[in-house]
Amino acid sequence: MKNYDAIVIGGGPGGIAAAYALQEQNKSVAVIEADLWGGTCPNRGCDPKKILMSAVEAKSRIEKLNGKGFNGSPTIQWDELMAFKRFYTDSVPSNTKKGFEDAEIDTFEGQAEFIDANTIKVADEQLSAKQFLIATGQRPAILPVEGQEYLQTSTDFLNLDKMPERITFIGAGYIAFELATIANAAGADVHIIQHNDQPLKGFDKELAMDLVDHLKNKGITFHLNIDIAKVEAVEPGYCLSAENFELSTDMVVVAAGRVPNIESLKLDNAGVNYSKRGIIVDDYLRTNQAHIFACGDVLDKSHPKLTPVSGFEASYVVKAMNGDTEPIHYPQIPSLVFGDQKLARVGLSEKELSENAQKYHSKTIELGSWFTYFRINDQEAKIKLVYDENQKIVAITCFSELADELINYFNLILEKKVSHEELTDFIFAYPTPASDLEYFI
Amino acid sequence: MKNYDAIVIGGGPGGIAAAYALQEQNKSVAVIEADLWGGTCPNRGCDPKKILMSAVEAKSRIEKLNGKGFNGSPTIQWDELMAFKRFYTDSVPSNTKKGFEDAEIDTFEGQAEFIDANTIKVADEQLSAKQFLIATGQRPAILPVEGQEYLQTSTDFLNLDKMPERITFIGAGYIAFELATIANAAGADVHIIQHNDQPLKGFDKELAMDLVDHLKNKGITFHLNIDIAKVEAVEPGYCLSAENFELSTDMVVVAAGRVPNIESLKLDNAGVNYSKRGIIVDDYLRTNQAHIFACGDVLDKSHPKLTPVSGFEASYVVKAMNGDTEPIHYPQIPSLVFGDQKLARVGLSEKELSENAQKYHSKTIELGSWFTYFRINDQEAKIKLVYDENQKIVAITCFSELADELINYFNLILEKKVSHEELTDFIFAYPTPASDLEYFI
Repeated sequence: MKNYDAIVIGGGPGGIAAAYALQEQNKSVAVIEADLWGGTCPNRGCDPKKILMSAVEAKSRIEKLNGKGFNGSPTIQWDELMAFKRFYTDSVPSNTKKGFEDAEIDTFEGQAEFIDANTIKVADEQLSAKQFLIATGQRPAILPVEGQEYLQTSTDFLNLDKMPERITFIGAGYIAFELATIANAAGADVHIIQHNDQPLKGFDKELAMDLVDHLKNKGITFHLNIDIAKVEAVEPGYCLSAENFELSTDMVVVAAGRVPNIESLKLDNAGVNYSKRGIIVDDYLRTNQAHIFACGDVLDKSHPKLTPVSGFEASYVVKAMNGDTEPIHYPQIPSLVFGDQKLARVGLSEKELSENAQKYHSKTIELGSWFTYFRINDQEAKIKLVYDENQKIVAITCFSELADELINYFNLILEKKVSHEELTDFIFAYPTPASDLEYFI
Repeated sequence: MKNYDAIVIGGGPGGIAAAYALQEQNKSVAVIEADLWGGTCPNRGCDPKKILMSAVEAKSRIEKLNGKGFNGSPTIQWDELMAFKRFYTDSVPSNTKKGFEDAEIDTFEGQAEFIDANTIKVADEQLSAKQFLIATGQRPAILPVEGQEYLQTSTDFLNLDKMPERITFIGAGYIAFELATIANAAGADVHIIQHNDQPLKGFDKELAMDLVDHLKNKGITFHLNIDIAKVEAVEPGYCLSAENFELSTDMVVVAAGRVPNIESLKLDNAGVNYSKRGIIVDDYLRTNQAHIFACGDVLDKSHPKLTPVSGFEASYVVKAMNGDTEPIHYPQIPSLVFGDQKLARVGLSEKELSENAQKYHSKTIELGSWFTYFRINDQEAKIKLVYDENQKIVAITCFSELADELINYFNLILEKKVSHEELTDFIFAYPTPASDLEYFI
C-alpha cells in the first residue's frame, strides 16, 4: 500500500493549486481524479464558456455600431467556434496530468472511496496518507421531473456540434444567462424558464432586470414562475409542460443549481460529516476529522462557488495543513455574469444588504452618455453604488459591456481603501474606463 | 475695463478644470478661447480619435476570430462612422461654453493678447486680473518643406468626409500610428514616413517594433530614415520626394511634432519667459511673473503632453494660485498608443531607463498562449517588465488588444505599492485580464 504525506482528491483548480503547493514543501503527494483532469473550470466551465463568449462579444461590438460605422451583423460559425473551443479543451486533461507527473506528483484515475479515515481505494489500489484534501467540486443538479432523461446540462451545451434551432434553459442563474446569451448570438430561439420571479438571485434586482430586458430585446423569451412538471419527446424535439404552460423546443438544458460530488467518496467510512450541500468544515477548512480538509465547490459554505475562491482556499488549506492557526479570512469576492452586456458586483452580498436595508442607501448612475460608453454605443451602461450610514461604499454593481474591467478596478480600490483624493491624484491612460474612476469613488 | 480675480487663457481640459475650481472658491473668473471651446482633446484629439477607434477595435475582434467563429471581415462605413464622431464633437464647443455660463464663469472668444502683465485684450475688450493661467495648448507643427501648403494635419484627418484610397503620414509618433491604424482599417493604402529609424520614441524599442510588425502585416508600409524634401500636386494626388525616394499618395498628414500656442499671446508685453518649446515655469507652474501661471501642453516641460496630465496640473495650479507652497509632484503617467493592438507603458521613462541601463534588467513574457489572450486569439500579446537591482518593478510595457486595461491595473498597483503577496490574496473576477496580475507582480 502506497503511503503519502498528502492525498488530494479531485484534480480541478483547487486540487491542482494545493497539490503543487504541498509538493513544493517536499511532501509526497498523490492526486486522484474520477473524471477529467483539470476539473470543471477548464474542461466544462469558465474557460470553454469564455472562449464561446469571445465570438458573442465580437459580434456585439459590431452590432452596437450598427448604422454608426457598420451595417449588418457578422454570423457566428458555430462549428468553427466549437473547434476553437475544443482545440483548447481537448488538451486540458493530458496537460494537467503531465504537469503533475513532471512535478513528481503521483496521479491516480478513478473514483476515490474512503476505506477508513486514513485509507483510500482507487482503481483497485489502496493508498494511505497522513492528511487528505477533498476538492471534488460539484456537478449540475438533476431536475426531478417526469422525462428527466431528456434533459441536458451545461456540459452538453459546451460541447454542442450543432446549435439547435430552439433551445430552452431551465433555471435563471448566471450559468443559464451566459449559455442563453451564447445560444442567442449563435442564432437559436432561446427560452429561459424559472420557477420563481427572481432571476440572477445574488445580484442587485434593478440591474439584473436591466440584463433581463437587454436579453429580451435580443430575442430571448423569459417564462417566470413556471415550475416544469414534465418533459416529453415529440417529433421534432421536446415538449415542456407545467400548470397552464406548454413549450416546444429542440434541446432542454437544466441549469438549476449544482450539487456536491460527495456520494461516491464513502465519507461515512472515514467518519467525515457532510450535508446535502457539501462537506462541513470549520474556519480552518478542516472537517470533523482533524487530518481531512476540504476546499472549493464541494464545501457546504455560503461563499460563491468560483474558481478563484477555490484557488484561494487551496492556498490557505496548505498552510492550515501545516498547523497555521489563523482562521481563513476571505477577501472581497467579485461576481460576474459574462455576456455581451456583463453584470458584475463586488462588496457586501445582496443578502447582507437586504438584511440591514435601513443602514444602506444607493445611487444609480446611467453611463450611456459618458464618453467611455458613448463611443462604443453602450447605451444601457449603468452603475449602482451602495453606501452605509457613513457614506462609505459597501457594494458596487455594474451593468455594461465593460463591467468586468470596472469591477476589477473597484476590487483593487476597495481592498486597498483608495480614497477619492488619492484617485484624483492618479493619472490613468485617457480616455479609458479607469479614467472615470474618480467620478465614482 | 472688466476686472477678474483670475483669467484663464484657453478653454481646453486644463483651462476648464482650473476655471471651475477657481469659481468654486468664489473667485470671479473669465475664460478666453481663440478657437473651439473644449480645446484639442474633445474636438480634435483623444475623443474623436477614440470614437473612430471603436470601429477599428470591433472590426479587429472579428478578424482575430477569422476561421475560429467568423468568416470575413466587416467593412467600416466611413461616412456613418464620421457622422457618429460628429454627433459627439459638434456639440462640444456649445456645451462647453454653456457649462461656463451656467457656472457664472465669463467667456470671451478671440485671440488673447497681453497688453501688460495685468491686462489682456480680446476681441476689442480689455480685461484685467489679479492672476492669470495660460493653458493654450499646442497645435500640429508645420513641416518646413517645399509644397508645405499641400500638407494636412490630424485635425483634417479626424474630419475626413471620405477616406482617400492612398494616405501617407509623415512622422511616426503615437498620433501617426493611431491615425494610420484607423485609415488602414477603413480600407486605405497607408504609408508612414519617418526621418529616423526610431518609431514611437518614448516606448520600449522591442515592443514598439512588435507594433510596427503588426501594422506591416495589416498592410501599412513603413519608410524609415526618409527626410521628405518636397511635396508636389500631381494628378491625382501628391508626390512626396526625398533623396532616392518618391511616393504618390492622395493625402499627406503631417504628424511630426506639435508646437505651443504662444506666438499670438504677446507674452513679451507681459514680460513672461518662454522658449520655442513652450512657456517656462518653475516647480509651482509659475512663470517668471509671480501672478501668471501656465499648465498643460503649452508648458516647456518634459512630461508627456496628455489630457489627464493637464487636468492634474490644473488642479495643482489652482492650489498654487492660493499660495500652497509644495512643489508639484507628478504621479506615474501611463502612455498609450491606441489601436486594435495597443502599446502601453507606465513607470520610469525610456530615457531614465537608458541613462542608467546597467542598473536595470528586464523580462519579456509572450502572452499569446495565456487563456486571457488565447480566447480572443491575440497571439501577439506580450508584456515586458523592467526591474531595478533590488528586483523592484520600475517600468512595465504591454503590447496587446488589452494593454490599456492592463496598464491601468499596473498604474494602481504600482502607485499603491501592492505586493505579490497581497495580489495573491485578492480575488478578481475570473477569467479576466486582472486574474493574471499575480503572475506578473
